[in-house]
Amino acid sequence: MDKIIDVAVIMGSDSDLPTMAECLKIFDKFGISYSVNVGSAHRTPEHVKKCVQKSIATGAKVFIAVAGMSAALPGVVASETTFPVIGVPMDGKYLASMDALFSVSQMPPFMPVACVSIGKAGAINSAILAIQILAINDAKLADKFKVYRQDMAKSIVAKDEKLNKTGYVKYIEEMKK
Amino acid sequence: MDKIIDVAVIMGSDSDLPTMAECLKIFDKFGISYSVNVGSAHRTPEHVKKCVQKSIATGAKVFIAVAGMSAALPGVVASETTFPVIGVPMDGKYLASMDALFSVSQMPPFMPVACVSIGKAGAINSAILAIQILAINDAKLADKFKVYRQDMAKSIVAKDEKLNKTGYVKYIEEMKK
Amino acid sequence: MDKIIDVAVIMGSDSDLPTMAECLKIFDKFGISYSVNVGSAHRTPEHVKKCVQKSIATGAKVFIAVAGMSAALPGVVASETTFPVIGVPMDGKYLASMDALFSVSQMPPFMPVACVSIGKAGAINSAILAIQILAINDAKLADKFKVYRQDMAKSIVAKDEKLNKTGYVKYIEEMKK
Amino acid sequence: MDKIIDVAVIMGSDSDLPTMAECLKIFDKFGISYSVNVGSAHRTPEHVKKCVQKSIATGAKVFIAVAGMSAALPGVVASETTFPVIGVPMDGKYLASMDALFSVSQMPPFMPVACVSIGKAGAINSAILAIQILAINDAKLADKFKVYRQDMAKSIVAKDEKLNKTGYVKYIEEMKK
Amino acid sequence: MDKIIDVAVIMGSDSDLPTMAECLKIFDKFGISYSVNVGSAHRTPEHVKKCVQKSIATGAKVFIAVAGMSAALPGVVASETTFPVIGVPMDGKYLASMDALFSVSQMPPFMPVACVSIGKAGAINSAILAIQILAINDAKLADKFKVYRQDMAKSIVAKDEKLNKTGYVKYIEEMKK
Amino acid sequence: MDKIIDVAVIMGSDSDLPTMAECLKIFDKFGISYSVNVGSAHRTPEHVKKCVQKSIATGAKVFIAVAGMSAALPGVVASETTFPVIGVPMDGKYLASMDALFSVSQMPPFMPVACVSIGKAGAINSAILAIQILAINDAKLADKFKVYRQDMAKSIVAKDEKLNKTGYVKYIEEMKK
Amino acid sequence: MDKIIDVAVIMGSDSDLPTMAECLKIFDKFGISYSVNVGSAHRTPEHVKKCVQKSIATGAKVFIAVAGMSAALPGVVASETTFPVIGVPMDGKYLASMDALFSVSQMPPFMPVACVSIGKAGAINSAILAIQILAINDAKLADKFKVYRQDMAKSIVAKDEKLNKTGYVKYIEEMKK
Amino acid sequence: MDKIIDVAVIMGSDSDLPTMAECLKIFDKFGISYSVNVGSAHRTPEHVKKCVQKSIATGAKVFIAVAGMSAALPGVVASETTFPVIGVPMDGKYLASMDALFSVSQMPPFMPVACVSIGKAGAINSAILAIQILAINDAKLADKFKVYRQDMAKSIVAKDEKLNKTGYVKYIEEMKK
Repeated sequence: MDKIIDVAVIMGSDSDLPTMAECLKIFDKFGISYSVNVGSAHRTPEHVKKCVQKSIATGAKVFIAVAGMSAALPGVVASETTFPVIGVPMDGKYLASMDALFSVSQMPPFMPVACVSIGKAGAINSAILAIQILAINDAKLADKFKVYRQDMAKSIVAKDEKLNKTGYVKYIEEMKK
Repeated sequence: MDKIIDVAVIMGSDSDLPTMAECLKIFDKFGISYSVNVGSAHRTPEHVKKCVQKSIATGAKVFIAVAGMSAALPGVVASETTFPVIGVPMDGKYLASMDALFSVSQMPPFMPVACVSIGKAGAINSAILAIQILAINDAKLADKFKVYRQDMAKSIVAKDEKLNKTGYVKYIEEMKK
Repeated sequence: MDKIIDVAVIMGSDSDLPTMAECLKIFDKFGISYSVNVGSAHRTPEHVKKCVQKSIATGAKVFIAVAGMSAALPGVVASETTFPVIGVPMDGKYLASMDALFSVSQMPPFMPVACVSIGKAGAINSAILAIQILAINDAKLADKFKVYRQDMAKSIVAKDEKLNKTGYVKYIEEMKK
Repeated sequence: MDKIIDVAVIMGSDSDLPTMAECLKIFDKFGISYSVNVGSAHRTPEHVKKCVQKSIATGAKVFIAVAGMSAALPGVVASETTFPVIGVPMDGKYLASMDALFSVSQMPPFMPVACVSIGKAGAINSAILAIQILAINDAKLADKFKVYRQDMAKSIVAKDEKLNKTGYVKYIEEMKK
Repeated sequence: MDKIIDVAVIMGSDSDLPTMAECLKIFDKFGISYSVNVGSAHRTPEHVKKCVQKSIATGAKVFIAVAGMSAALPGVVASETTFPVIGVPMDGKYLASMDALFSVSQMPPFMPVACVSIGKAGAINSAILAIQILAINDAKLADKFKVYRQDMAKSIVAKDEKLNKTGYVKYIEEMKK
Repeated sequence: MDKIIDVAVIMGSDSDLPTMAECLKIFDKFGISYSVNVGSAHRTPEHVKKCVQKSIATGAKVFIAVAGMSAALPGVVASETTFPVIGVPMDGKYLASMDALFSVSQMPPFMPVACVSIGKAGAINSAILAIQILAINDAKLADKFKVYRQDMAKSIVAKDEKLNKTGYVKYIEEMKK
Repeated sequence: MDKIIDVAVIMGSDSDLPTMAECLKIFDKFGISYSVNVGSAHRTPEHVKKCVQKSIATGAKVFIAVAGMSAALPGVVASETTFPVIGVPMDGKYLASMDALFSVSQMPPFMPVACVSIGKAGAINSAILAIQILAINDAKLADKFKVYRQDMAKSIVAKDEKLNKTGYVKYIEEMKK
Repeated sequence: MDKIIDVAVIMGSDSDLPTMAECLKIFDKFGISYSVNVGSAHRTPEHVKKCVQKSIATGAKVFIAVAGMSAALPGVVASETTFPVIGVPMDGKYLASMDALFSVSQMPPFMPVACVSIGKAGAINSAILAIQILAINDAKLADKFKVYRQDMAKSIVAKDEKLNKTGYVKYIEEMKK
């Protein structure tokens, strides 16, 4: 029997996996259960459809779809489920990655994808956004997330304090180490 | 006493209201309760903060933030709440509206905004995405949304049937009426 | 029984029809049989699939898929058939129509779409390209197309001659009439 | 005597050859006969014309033209033949390769080029698209191509299965090897 | 017998003529003799070639080539003559006219086009640049051009003086008349 | 004798004046004395130089330079003075006004221009920024500006209150009046 | 007690520090006192607010805010002070850094940020612009800056002289050393 | 006494020299006499003016001006001479070099710059274009240039022949050596 999951992650190519590991690590840290699939909107539409249906059957409430270039996967996943779909535009070699960003964000009316940042920042943000959505009805997760965010803020303030103690010249030297 | 709401909509300017009416009409149709506020991230940061806090206090679980140009409002709202924030890039007169789209979507890691399409399509999609998020834990809403989506699909298929009955010349003539 | 067709035209929205009429008129002129369908990649994926399957069953050898914004339809059609797919990026209000152009052209490896120009020029060019493909194995059509192209060239040369007879001032005056 | 060919490939520069090798390898695999020429639309227009004429004389039914920057070659080839022309925008160092993409795709009405993706993906897709066009009237090739596409789909599904067996951490480790 | 000309102007379409009239008027004013032709690089390559050859035969020393979208004409003209070619990117409806600008300016090494501004400003600037080139070996033209430029400068300074006399409110009022 | 001024405004063309009136009105309101000149960096470089020198002689401490297209004026003014120069990129018809924005903002190291928004928003912001700079050493102006900003904030909050009283349907109706 | 400062520098991330060191070195050279802080508009809004307030309390008259991607920090700092704010768009990996440039420059009316160049050039220019602003009321600093600028000009002229003495071949050789 | 020159080359920075060496080598080959200067439009406007005046005094008939980012130098040179000015947009790290291209090409009406390609291709093309302009009145140079261009064409045809002899696999192998 398939394990119960909260989030279904579908990537257009396994080459997206090293970047999306940033997303999965955050889920691991928060104890979010998830599925990960490789499936191309264009090359394996039936497989993508099956992944979506299986994910729904095993409890997925939020989808994360990842693709580069003419990034159709997030939209295709959105067309196969009524659950919210987060789209991560993967960075490519050309067009300054505008192709993926425009394809993911410019969805037609009545069929949204929640587009996040390009590349690694987007991988991270897709995890955070999924957690924020799940936390609406999970008070424990919400509390955990608030602490997480406070810790992140604290670590930035700590950097500020360190910078003001050491001075910028020394700080940069230590960054290089 | 303030009424209980599900979604908080904050616009950077009241000039966004005619476009965002498309969003509010959908909420009205679905019986989603919402607040609407005008508040500028840059010109009234304290007011924006108050709107966010009040919205949280009155039950908001999803935020929709709307802005054009250097569209900071979605990010600023995201920094004031741990609930998910949907960002609508408003269309502007210059830069082919890339300024708003890039500002809303390219959020730094760990601080996502769910960016939807530019302008009116985004206004509509922000409502649909909010409903999809709320429907995760609201079976009635989920059912209603599924019917809504099926009806939308049916209306497209109906257009296809009409086109195939009347032929394209007559169809276009009737479109012009 | 469905009529035998050579080309299947699928549009993401009936609002594309007035522009695509330019394509259909050329087919009418050349006696190319075609089907026309409205079907959204995102909103009616099953209907699109059916249109593609029915088109194949009734003889379609070339597909033309038309969409704007995050223009997924050409790619989705390409994933459902092994026949060549011509994609027409429809013009939109934002991003200088780069969103549609990038979505249609930047297909992943092994899954091409034959992208033509944006908007009306693309509507015309999709018809011409389909004819060129069909003409490979249709000597009569090939001959007809060669004459058509020569006539087009002649009409440009005729304009040149007229301009050189009347002079530019008078030529512009007559253009305005 | 020149060998009979199906596809004529013309590159604006021999520096395009390593990228276009991806195209030629696919033709080799499918047993498609082809010619390859280097000829610059701007620097050797007569030579390009001769290449096109000779290709037609030796049986070419589909043309592939490859160029970067102000990529005029596909359009120039299109002006010299009534057979379909596939254009591959080569990647360049500047303008995020928009110059080549816009030059290849934005052809004037009545003179289409079938634009595919930028760079290596486009090299691959030009081969696939040419095969799809040739397969319209070649049942054996059509069957071969369907198997090829199914194999491609299977290899993606196989990656998905491997990922789900090994887990993402190990999968990434093995990718690095 | 054809009249002796100094500049050959070739436009991709007669729709460019109203814009290019700005160029021709300047030639008329300076007494520069010129030819004007309509000829499409893609649709009438032979005609373009003939226009270039005839222009050379009748004395043309500078060429002006005008085109929009995938603006191949300036490059094609450059490939048919060793005289300098000025390219005017015509404005189009899509891509913010980047397609024409990139096509005209991004010529491959060893085959320059002298690209000027987009649209009407470019039409004017093509005339001025041609005059500057011709004036290198025409002292009278050079003197005439210097006076012309001084007059232009004076007219700007005169506007400045008027503005400072009337004040900005009144100046704007008078602009509206 | 020339009046003492605080700010020197130089426009590349008198066609910029209706837009820049938004700037001048704010100076009028705050009692900031200013000069206004029309002078083209390219067509009247000597005149621009004189305007800058005269402005310095009459007390100007801040410069505002306004230009569109290849907007060289702000940089040219910056090269003629050591006082801070605010650059306003004027909107143009092509390139989505990126030409003016990039020209004004992308100054080489050691020669800054303070670039503000494109068009009317930039005209307004140039005035506000000049006031902020002058207010550093003018306590009265600083106080006046603080009140001005508070009033602006209040007017936004007032709109928010009105919207919440009347409801969005009625608010939009009243906007149309 | 906190030291009196003239300029407050706030960076969105400590990763901006190596680039911004170019700014701080110039301040060190000119004897401008400054504070440096790390604070994220999105992740530590309260900390940013505190930094701004403390900077004002310790005498800051000019702010420099530095950020990449959806670069909200300059605008957020501008909303917290009436002193002039210089914004430095940091370079990022995607969108050719247009995201940061558009976010910093395209501020809404009445809330300017003085946008300088992207990346290192912007870091340098932010220092120069701050000095130009401070020098308005500091005759010594103004004199020092004039000498500095003259020295910079001299060093360029010296390069010109060297180039003309050594010739370009040798000059390039020496550049490589 | 200064030597008589035909072409004046002015670069905004000595860092442009390695790229512009491609231009100077061509002049050396053709026996074109030239001056080379380093001078910044923004940082040494007086020096640029002197360079232009001295170049005119020593016989320059064509100017080549080279700059990156907000590339004002070509326009500034154009404003100081009535001779034709060729502008080379230097490549930069950001904005995909659109900043330099737009600044050089988008000159206001009546003040043209002959914009060539970005970077090294532009360096080469600026030399070729200058030669084409000078050759109008120099029959020997014109003949030399025609031979040069034919040789270039021959070398491309030779590559084509080699490719067709060796086959693409071997040709690529030899390219790598």
